[in-house]
Amino acid sequence: MRAAVMRNSRIVTDDVPEPIPGPGEVLVKTLACGICGSDLHALKHAKQFVENAPGGMAMDISRDVVMGHEFCAEILDYGPQTSRTLPVGTRVCSYPMLFRSGMPVSVGYSNDVPGGYAQRMVLMEQLLLPVRNGLSTERAALTEPLAVALHAIEMARLQADDVPLVIGCGPIGLAVISVLKTRGVHPIIAADYSPLRRKLAEQLGADVVLDPSKTSPYTSWRQLAGVSRSGVRLPENPLTGTNELRPGVFFECVGIPGVIDQMMVGAERGCRFVIVGVCMEPDQIRPLLAISKELNLQFVLAYTPDEFARTLSLIADGQLIVDPLITGKVGVAGVADAFRDLGHPDSHAKIIVEPWRER
Amino acid sequence: MRAAVMRNSRIVTDDVPEPIPGPGEVLVKTLACGICGSDLHALKHAKQFVENAPGGMAMDISRDVVMGHEFCAEILDYGPQTSRTLPVGTRVCSYPMLFRSGMPVSVGYSNDVPGGYAQRMVLMEQLLLPVRNGLSTERAALTEPLAVALHAIEMARLQADDVPLVIGCGPIGLAVISVLKTRGVHPIIAADYSPLRRKLAEQLGADVVLDPSKTSPYTSWRQLAGVSRSGVRLPENPLTGTNELRPGVFFECVGIPGVIDQMMVGAERGCRFVIVGVCMEPDQIRPLLAISKELNLQFVLAYTPDEFARTLSLIADGQLIVDPLITGKVGVAGVADAFRDLGHPDSHAKIIVEPWRER
Repeated sequence: MRAAVMRNSRIVTDDVPEPIPGPGEVLVKTLACGICGSDLHALKHAKQFVENAPGGMAMDISRDVVMGHEFCAEILDYGPQTSRTLPVGTRVCSYPMLFRSGMPVSVGYSNDVPGGYAQRMVLMEQLLLPVRNGLSTERAALTEPLAVALHAIEMARLQADDVPLVIGCGPIGLAVISVLKTRGVHPIIAADYSPLRRKLAEQLGADVVLDPSKTSPYTSWRQLAGVSRSGVRLPENPLTGTNELRPGVFFECVGIPGVIDQMMVGAERGCRFVIVGVCMEPDQIRPLLAISKELNLQFVLAYTPDEFARTLSLIADGQLIVDPLITGKVGVAGVADAFRDLGHPDSHAKIIVEPWRER
Repeated sequence: MRAAVMRNSRIVTDDVPEPIPGPGEVLVKTLACGICGSDLHALKHAKQFVENAPGGMAMDISRDVVMGHEFCAEILDYGPQTSRTLPVGTRVCSYPMLFRSGMPVSVGYSNDVPGGYAQRMVLMEQLLLPVRNGLSTERAALTEPLAVALHAIEMARLQADDVPLVIGCGPIGLAVISVLKTRGVHPIIAADYSPLRRKLAEQLGADVVLDPSKTSPYTSWRQLAGVSRSGVRLPENPLTGTNELRPGVFFECVGIPGVIDQMMVGAERGCRFVIVGVCMEPDQIRPLLAISKELNLQFVLAYTPDEFARTLSLIADGQLIVDPLITGKVGVAGVADAFRDLGHPDSHAKIIVEPWRER
């Protein structure tokens, strides 16, 4: 079958062996698969990625890897020891993991099982979630990145009075905005240097969208957090002579060195940071600054199977706005170019791969 | 009056002007004042300390500062606009802050009001807490560092099943152990290179005390966290093949660069860090490591007035063990040497200054 393969730190299109479903597994046709920023990281920073990856991502990068873990697929056939509840032809999403010999194997970060940049995959029957009639394939394929955002927001311990600030409006920052929109916290403030991404942030529900080269996101946050939900200016704090502020929850969705320190400078006492962006390099912080403001940093990763299933339901019910995220579609031969294009923040947010077509 | 003065980055003994109580203020005689690690930091890293200090610590370090904020004192006289409820001669503790013209002034970090390394201070009548009969002056003087630990533990969001690990058994690490002991979380694990500090950690209630040069605190924590409170070995996690662990709460009580990263390496998924140690220099972390384990970092500072008052009550009621913390006492002329001695972790924990005596 055809696949876009990670080989020698490049993406190449090639024929790869057909996957064979083992016990409890299902053969599926990949209908659509989003390209994730983590895949760009894995290609560029393969060594750090493998060294720090959680269990189940044990890849040997000297061998082929077919990435792709944000997929919607169609059931083709069942392997042994399956109950075959869902008819062949059913469209499904799945938590991107298999268990083989009791050990986890990440779909899309493994030498042994291909991910969604291939025409076919094997998935675990037990993890399959049928895509309800009416939900489009490409929306269903967005379940995975939206589940990342849902999990981040679960970990943020949001309260009604929080004023969220989203730093960086790449696909994950945009997904965070979309999930925040369902939680009734307002105003949602978002910042990105890219005009395209700022436009998408607005479409996804951000109330205030800023260009950091013109307006400090932190100054804007401070002004907006100084006004109550009912529009009343909050009283002055006699200790500081400045206005009381509603609690700040800052989402780091950039993932490059220096952003956390910059957020610490911009924050006020008691702000909580949720670190969703994946910074692959060492980073410098000033603990004294964090201490003087009693900051809280919650680093987050992935999502639970329950969060994944809830995200698919929220998309199917129309509660999560996702369409603006998709800015392009390619066939299997277009993946290498798509990886390159995604390096330019003003050309794309999410590109969907349709590996059943060559171009 | 006599005082130990911070002048040109040194501690010198000199005569300084008598403080005069303003409206709402009280003149007190300093009976005992502990030397705090922050005072050592302020002397050594004055510039960073002043730049990052929260409101109320606006010092000009080119002018004299009399430090000392861990005190027990005796009421000598009342200033104007005071209600004079407590008789002259009453022993008191106080949240170390004044309000002048509506602005906070830190007692012990100010050019305008002397701290507890002077024979007399002024305090705010409204913040005075009488020391109940029977509680010794030196125990009462430990209210402040124990309040720091109480606050850190309030911010830790402790749950019954947590297994705490205290990294560093200086005065603050020891105070954290003492407060943890009142919360019923066990085992309390503590680590320090100094034999004296390890002995004190045991006396204050640590269940397992380790020398990191011989035993990894993280390996020990992992072994102990793999056993339930009732002594049953926890089951294996099918995902990782390792034993399930009770939640880890690691208290950083060292405050030097590199410790947070080392804790991140030693931690397991979902560990919470409470950063109590005050690291004055920039520090490097690896966000990818923190992300892969979904770590939470809570930086903490000081305490609320309510926490301060509760701490004094806990000490007075005998619920907080504090005596082992005190390893020395000096007169006002001994403060410079005491600062030097406190730089050697195997000679002292807390030194109490009694500024009413010269030697």
